[in-house]
Amino acid sequence: MIGRLNHVAIAVSDIDAATAIYRDTLGADVSSREEQPDHGVSTVFINLPNTKIELLEPLGDDSPIAKFLEKNPSGGIHHVCYEVDDILAARDKLVADGARVLGDGEPKIGAHGKPVLFLHPKDFLGTLTELEEA
Amino acid sequence: MIGRLNHVAIAVSDIDAATAIYRDTLGADVSSREEQPDHGVSTVFINLPNTKIELLEPLGDDSPIAKFLEKNPSGGIHHVCYEVDDILAARDKLVADGARVLGDGEPKIGAHGKPVLFLHPKDFLGTLTELEEA
Repeated sequence: MIGRLNHVAIAVSDIDAATAIYRDTLGADVSSREEQPDHGVSTVFINLPNTKIELLEPLGDDSPIAKFLEKNPSGGIHHVCYEVDDILAARDKLVADGARVLGDGEPKIGAHGKPVLFLHPKDFLGTLTELEEA
Repeated sequence: MIGRLNHVAIAVSDIDAATAIYRDTLGADVSSREEQPDHGVSTVFINLPNTKIELLEPLGDDSPIAKFLEKNPSGGIHHVCYEVDDILAARDKLVADGARVLGDGEPKIGAHGKPVLFLHPKDFLGTLTELEEA
């Protein structure tokens, strides 16, 4: 069912400093910074040859990554995102298998403009897992 | 400098149960289980079209992932691994930039039979970062 690893997301408190580490120290290709007020984050993409790393900084007062950064002030890996062909079919299969989908169970339009769902980390090896319809 | 994302490693306490989640619930292609006594882990690879997920279970009394699992009993993402062309040149560049390499700073032969180094998570956004000479 799952296809490509779309991205690995790393939450950080200072996205400009984090971008400099990837650009200057690790020598990677980085995108410009984008504010995504609908998702409560600013994003920068690290473009690797086969996938991307998504840097996330909280934006606004109710950011979904604020609590994670309170617990992990140095930053850390926040989630992984796998591509699926059909997100509703994927969701129905997962729910039938007893896995928990976060929120109301309906796909939302994610930061890349495509339908996404998040799966409960306790059902997926302590790993917050996003599915994105590719 | 960094190239492909070689793998994302997820540490788990029960690799057979973890493999079943990726194979049966997420419908991914999984390898057979391998014991790697030199590295203190058992491994299973989840083969995605563009990269792989490496499941790690502690093996033996002195596993390098034992402490992580004490802190994260449900499991969790342990590290990311990027490919580099020349691991000694990469190390020298990183050290010159002030980044810390774990251990004695010399590459070791990793679980895939290739030279690897681990970088200090506090220098890389709270993320344990492995470099592997591709």
